[in-house]
Amino acid sequence: MLDESGSKISPRTISRLPVYWRYLKELDDFGIERISSRELAGRIGSTPSQLRQDLNQFGHFGQHGYGYPVEELLSSISQILGLNRTRKMIIVGMGNLGMAIASYENFGRRNIKLAALFDVDPERIGTVVSDVQIQHADEMPKFLEENQIDIGCVSTPPEVAQEAVTTMEHGGVLGIWNFAPVKLQTKLPVEHLHLGDSLLELLYRIGRREDK
Amino acid sequence: MLDESGSKISPRTISRLPVYWRYLKELDDFGIERISSRELAGRIGSTPSQLRQDLNQFGHFGQHGYGYPVEELLSSISQILGLNRTRKMIIVGMGNLGMAIASYENFGRRNIKLAALFDVDPERIGTVVSDVQIQHADEMPKFLEENQIDIGCVSTPPEVAQEAVTTMEHGGVLGIWNFAPVKLQTKLPVEHLHLGDSLLELLYRIGRREDK
Repeated sequence: MLDESGSKISPRTISRLPVYWRYLKELDDFGIERISSRELAGRIGSTPSQLRQDLNQFGHFGQHGYGYPVEELLSSISQILGLNRTRKMIIVGMGNLGMAIASYENFGRRNIKLAALFDVDPERIGTVVSDVQIQHADEMPKFLEENQIDIGCVSTPPEVAQEAVTTMEHGGVLGIWNFAPVKLQTKLPVEHLHLGDSLLELLYRIGRREDK
Repeated sequence: MLDESGSKISPRTISRLPVYWRYLKELDDFGIERISSRELAGRIGSTPSQLRQDLNQFGHFGQHGYGYPVEELLSSISQILGLNRTRKMIIVGMGNLGMAIASYENFGRRNIKLAALFDVDPERIGTVVSDVQIQHADEMPKFLEENQIDIGCVSTPPEVAQEAVTTMEHGGVLGIWNFAPVKLQTKLPVEHLHLGDSLLELLYRIGRREDK
């Protein structure tokens, strides 16, 4: 029942799957075996009916009155999200943001392995972050030729982000995780994390409250 | 026609407004006065019909065949997003992520003023970032008593994020911009930026491609 067609799961549901995954992972770590739809929905700020609607899109879980089996549900969501295999990631741009990303503790939980770090600043090259040494960005094409990399993370200044992405795409990277506030030309899937957009949404919500 | 009721604009539209704002701001900076719905939609990866549907929710812009007036549209969106007034922000947690946020160049464009930075690490206290000196977090309650702060940015380790938010809420902060991977108890609006969730969405999309 797992998402065979590729068209069953709605984009809104997909954006909620990482949140479900996070809470189920916590429950599983604590050894909790079952959770009611009401309780799980409450934890993630959703409603039991939305939760059921989401989960019904990729399988039949839970029996009325018995709740969801945590481990089984976690395993299904992990599989949909592709967490059952290790993915290799490189980061280009080791300023404060790149350093913060490279130091992020939760990659291991998500089966992500940091494979290489790149920058152009001579003062940064050679520094070791999370057991990986920063190399010069000129080394990237050769590195990609010799290593199959899944995720290319871009935390460069915006004006060089496109160049980094082009190199990554040519080098066989499968997807781009982009922190640079710039639109990228690429055929690869791109996930943007745009600080400014997130801040504007907060400003909007603050303003709405003041109007009331 | 501007969003008087507070219920006219859908959440999906709101999440797209920051993107519209960014592209319109660029066009305006370049002195472009009009843009067709097709072109604007293309730039933001949307369709002309969705664009029209979004913009019709807060005003009547554009005439068939004449396109949208850039400055007027930008000004309306700025007003809806609350960008017509300056907002003061503080950041708690000046590790790599806090440093990256404090160094973000685009706050000025969004009328955000960095008012104070806090940490507990003696080695960081006293350091100046973007013209603001890092203070000890113990100073935060007093600072909030003396200054009206709009946005509290949390980039602390997860285990102290709640404490920071509680202090901010008591100190009269209006909204929380949260980078800590933890659910917060607060009555304030919270905008989360969760690195792990974003990465999982990318993993899902990479997996989908491989399946094809």
